[in-house]
Amino acid sequence: MIKAVLFDVDNVLYSSSHQVEMARRAAVEAMVKEGLEMPVEEAFKRLEELVAKYGSNFNKHFDLLVGSQKRGNRIIAAGIVAYHNTKRTYLKPYNDTLPTITKLKNLGYKIGVITDGLAIKQWEKLIRLGLQDLFDTVVISEEAGAEKPDQKLFQKACSDIGVEPKDCMYIGDRLDTDIIGANRANMVSVRLLRGKYKDQKPSGLQDRPNYEIKRLGEVLEILKEL
Amino acid sequence: MIKAVLFDVDNVLYSSSHQVEMARRAAVEAMVKEGLEMPVEEAFKRLEELVAKYGSNFNKHFDLLVGSQKRGNRIIAAGIVAYHNTKRTYLKPYNDTLPTITKLKNLGYKIGVITDGLAIKQWEKLIRLGLQDLFDTVVISEEAGAEKPDQKLFQKACSDIGVEPKDCMYIGDRLDTDIIGANRANMVSVRLLRGKYKDQKPSGLQDRPNYEIKRLGEVLEILKEL
Repeated sequence: MIKAVLFDVDNVLYSSSHQVEMARRAAVEAMVKEGLEMPVEEAFKRLEELVAKYGSNFNKHFDLLVGSQKRGNRIIAAGIVAYHNTKRTYLKPYNDTLPTITKLKNLGYKIGVITDGLAIKQWEKLIRLGLQDLFDTVVISEEAGAEKPDQKLFQKACSDIGVEPKDCMYIGDRLDTDIIGANRANMVSVRLLRGKYKDQKPSGLQDRPNYEIKRLGEVLEILKEL
Repeated sequence: MIKAVLFDVDNVLYSSSHQVEMARRAAVEAMVKEGLEMPVEEAFKRLEELVAKYGSNFNKHFDLLVGSQKRGNRIIAAGIVAYHNTKRTYLKPYNDTLPTITKLKNLGYKIGVITDGLAIKQWEKLIRLGLQDLFDTVVISEEAGAEKPDQKLFQKACSDIGVEPKDCMYIGDRLDTDIIGANRANMVSVRLLRGKYKDQKPSGLQDRPNYEIKRLGEVLEILKEL
């Protein structure tokens, strides 16, 4: 019997793909307006390439994009301001995030988070989303010393809340980290079809989710059936 | 005859002392609320000491304050969110900043900035203040390779706008960097008595300002008299 529902953060509690895309577009537009000598679409494409190459937690993407251009620091600063303003505007939970978690808590389920990322950055997101006080456990890869799909993360969440993996449901958006990890951990795996990974195809049994949902609220129906 | 009016940024165009104090207080309160085991006043004092020791552009003050306390990353994240929210709220020009600069421009004066700091950070401030398009030159220490009171900064501003130092007025809040630098550069030096340096006493002729004002708008009266 399911006793705990555990969530991924990005693209599960809020639309991080959309947020990041809008923030990058706003940044690029601001930089071009400020003098970056490149068409907006080309600048956007190059920025995406730089993020793919150096990772999203690298903090010199704009510097590399602008290079040694005249007035470079002013252009970079304009990009940073636009990026952060836009990121903040779009850092809002999905409409059904808070209602779903609230209902689950009222029904007596333990609630938790298992997420990859830098601990302070992931906590910042939860705090800005206003969700930080809702969880019985928050497991973050940097603190756990392992990343999804490593079992350590899933086991840590279980031991924090004192629930067996088979009595946990895990909801994530990625097959190659979330679903494969939850399956291996022997949790009930649920795939939320939102964000940039929604078109991934399972490669076999190991990354096939037990359930697929389009909105978080559908979790309540699955739990009723189980 | 004065042809150009040059400004320091912090505590001259906006109240950086007040902004930073309020942001640090908000951060400390948020961290204590989140579990930092320290009275608010003690935490504030220790934070100020850490800033004095490591400088304001170091980015691990909160980490050092929190140390290895349980739930440390969550506490640090709460501090960062409160800090940035408050900093943004207080990043507003003084009431008379924009009217004064606008009047000076209408009267035909060249307008500029000479400031110490990291180039991208100083540009970010000007952009967030909404003042970035008003200046004929912006000289920032990191780009100029020297800090106030070094003459290089003052000479660079003059050469950018094609005005002799003796025809420039420089307005700053610190005797030991702004006033001494402007005096040595042979500019007309004006001290704005705002922010945390307003109680500094001149040590001699070299750091004695030609004028002292309490509000930026008084510059217009001085220029009328000159």
